[in-house]
Amino acid sequence: MGLQGLSRAELVSLLSASRDAAHKLQQHALDPILRGRIIATMFFEDSTRTRSSFTVAAQRAGASVVDLSAGSSSVNKGETLIDTARNIEAMGVDAIIVRARQAGAAKIVADAVACPVINAGDGRHEHPTQGLLDTLTIASRFDRDSTFDLTGLNVVMVGDVASSRVARSAIAALSTLGASVTCVGPASMAPASLSGLGCAVAHELDPLLPSAHAVMMLRIQFERADADPHSKGDQQKKTLIASIREYRRFYSLSAERAAAMRSGAIVMHPGPINRGIELDADVADGPRSVIMQQVANGVAVRTAVLSLLVGGPRP
Amino acid sequence: MGLQGLSRAELVSLLSASRDAAHKLQQHALDPILRGRIIATMFFEDSTRTRSSFTVAAQRAGASVVDLSAGSSSVNKGETLIDTARNIEAMGVDAIIVRARQAGAAKIVADAVACPVINAGDGRHEHPTQGLLDTLTIASRFDRDSTFDLTGLNVVMVGDVASSRVARSAIAALSTLGASVTCVGPASMAPASLSGLGCAVAHELDPLLPSAHAVMMLRIQFERADADPHSKGDQQKKTLIASIREYRRFYSLSAERAAAMRSGAIVMHPGPINRGIELDADVADGPRSVIMQQVANGVAVRTAVLSLLVGGPRP
Amino acid sequence: MGLQGLSRAELVSLLSASRDAAHKLQQHALDPILRGRIIATMFFEDSTRTRSSFTVAAQRAGASVVDLSAGSSSVNKGETLIDTARNIEAMGVDAIIVRARQAGAAKIVADAVACPVINAGDGRHEHPTQGLLDTLTIASRFDRDSTFDLTGLNVVMVGDVASSRVARSAIAALSTLGASVTCVGPASMAPASLSGLGCAVAHELDPLLPSAHAVMMLRIQFERADADPHSKGDQQKKTLIASIREYRRFYSLSAERAAAMRSGAIVMHPGPINRGIELDADVADGPRSVIMQQVANGVAVRTAVLSLLVGGPRP
Repeated sequence: MGLQGLSRAELVSLLSASRDAAHKLQQHALDPILRGRIIATMFFEDSTRTRSSFTVAAQRAGASVVDLSAGSSSVNKGETLIDTARNIEAMGVDAIIVRARQAGAAKIVADAVACPVINAGDGRHEHPTQGLLDTLTIASRFDRDSTFDLTGLNVVMVGDVASSRVARSAIAALSTLGASVTCVGPASMAPASLSGLGCAVAHELDPLLPSAHAVMMLRIQFERADADPHSKGDQQKKTLIASIREYRRFYSLSAERAAAMRSGAIVMHPGPINRGIELDADVADGPRSVIMQQVANGVAVRTAVLSLLVGGPRP
Repeated sequence: MGLQGLSRAELVSLLSASRDAAHKLQQHALDPILRGRIIATMFFEDSTRTRSSFTVAAQRAGASVVDLSAGSSSVNKGETLIDTARNIEAMGVDAIIVRARQAGAAKIVADAVACPVINAGDGRHEHPTQGLLDTLTIASRFDRDSTFDLTGLNVVMVGDVASSRVARSAIAALSTLGASVTCVGPASMAPASLSGLGCAVAHELDPLLPSAHAVMMLRIQFERADADPHSKGDQQKKTLIASIREYRRFYSLSAERAAAMRSGAIVMHPGPINRGIELDADVADGPRSVIMQQVANGVAVRTAVLSLLVGGPRP
Repeated sequence: MGLQGLSRAELVSLLSASRDAAHKLQQHALDPILRGRIIATMFFEDSTRTRSSFTVAAQRAGASVVDLSAGSSSVNKGETLIDTARNIEAMGVDAIIVRARQAGAAKIVADAVACPVINAGDGRHEHPTQGLLDTLTIASRFDRDSTFDLTGLNVVMVGDVASSRVARSAIAALSTLGASVTCVGPASMAPASLSGLGCAVAHELDPLLPSAHAVMMLRIQFERADADPHSKGDQQKKTLIASIREYRRFYSLSAERAAAMRSGAIVMHPGPINRGIELDADVADGPRSVIMQQVANGVAVRTAVLSLLVGGPRP
């Protein structure tokens, strides 16, 4: 239920299918190979963006989508994740897309049901389709011979890597394909232990910029840190603003920092962006930004994954 | 707008169509006879599970679904049930599926509009598609000659029958088809007056188990009784836990009680289950359990009902 | 992003297409010219009714719909309207339907993305499809030669015109097509400055009734005025009830007032109705009422608009 542990061949296969889907989507030439199929989205953690991307992907391939959102789900009635998943399966859906706050949630669901299960984010563990779309976006720019060999590419990941499932999935895919990944942030966000994931760890962003091919900014998760600047007491607000100012000083990607990047290097962000915090608006909308390509590639990756898992002949 | 009052012939016709739909769904051979039709779900009472079942049923038959959930509905702006329904109808939908807290809500809607209306649960009154799926599940196991004659079958219904629309619908269908239904619970949940529905009433579960062909456990409705064990004060919590312990002692279906059932007898539950309260996890997942078949039959019943009501030539 | 500024020829073209769609919808003969297209609804302001109308319109024309509701949207994570819209566009949807509390929101979105954007209500500015459906409803009754020339028709609009986008759009369309529009209400709701929109302004309803061909009642917006009679303190409640009584005395359309209207004159309301406040139930359901035709025409107008904007060959 993640990209960690996938072989290079498996990744290349997924990415080739995704690249193919991206081309067909762009030319409105995608076959509706999921016609008659029903895909269930089971999001126990809110994410309109990811859910919509999966929905569009399924619809583009001809499937119908049935949504089970967290708020209205019977999980609120004390039902377990497994009970809910088994129920959805018993309704005869063709695949279940799961997002949840607990690491391992998608695996738990997959073990409980017979139909394909897709991990759309499980706690701090993985967000594999995001990792694939990040990798596809980098490969689309730098992989000239379409082999998905990323040897020689330097990817810098900036921010709260420790609690980012997005980072975890991307690091796995990128490093397996040969890229050198460096995670940067304060020690609390980029602890030395991250090196176990196959990446280097650093605490200063500036020295890494000139050699980076891609800089992936992570989102500062105000809402997870329970530190929303709009809703807190005055003292906390001041503390937070001070810490944001500090964070920006060292780790935000400002126009100035973007200017220090090499020619052709790209800037990425999984969205939604905190403009002016981890990423300046000018950079987000500037020539280096491939953020919209990431979003477009997200649909392509999800179309490919759904087609691979559900599109074959009926079991 | 319910199963009460339906004749044996009407029930057999609905159940035959449902059994037929179940077979076709299993073999992915259902005709998309609702293609081009739009079904509206109008749920003024939350139920992702039932709504999803209807949605999957409609999609399997080729229809599109437009959802109007309670939270975002203009009923919140003071609009009446009837105004909302008339509006949905005026939009040109082909059928309306209604769920509401008031008994009779579906009837009120049906009287106000010309398009087909399906009752997906109206207060404590009826939940007819649930009653049909329960009956279909029992018949699938015990009705060897496919005539839906259930004479000689003993069905035991356990729990808060008095406030259960699920029970009300199932009792009507099962008893009309010849089964002997006995409702069991404390006097507050299974009052003698229930016998007016055509069932026997008892207060002890154990003596009934050896002769039961099917035991239908009802859900303890913490949220309706305003007695959620997770959110209450300490004293209330203690009282509730004491009363749950007491309830379990007499009425829960434990592994021990399940062992006292006859060979081939089945255990049912409309879901979502309070595991360890009215039903033990071992029994819910054990060999007697047909709970997942109930869910699958739910889609079949709803596909059949929608097809019968909407699938004909346009009026 | 509105009807203000459209020429008579443009309006006639939109209305002809809408009338055509209405006929085809009624005869279930609409071509699915949006098959394979995906329409996104992006409602930052709650309106199940308008969203459902657009959804049914899109589905009738064969499109799939992906919904992004305000509550679950990442706008809550501090993302801007533009960021959200660009993301939806990058997912490859074929059109975006926007509703928001700020005047000009749809324009902001349209300027930020390349795909078609439809304004489903932007603050107090416009609600163009509502204005079109109002105009189509009036024309269907009085425009005998199908040229959409409304010269000689008297339309009276009653209520809080000043803060009504519905009124703003309808006034633009109706007056461009030749109708005489008079807005009526207390000076706070119908200030003299409204005449800049091309309508007359009056403060007494009764003298206008005998000559009106159509009376359009506007909804008293309790929830916008932050004056919900059900949730306020006693004193405020009394004040509100007093002001409602006063309002009713002069501006509600009672059965008595409806009787003073000329033969064949029609009563309209954009819904949802506050029955017994701005409009009596007897009149809403009476022979002059074309409120359900308005709803049906809403789907027709939206089908036509979506087909015109999205239905052509791919760009």
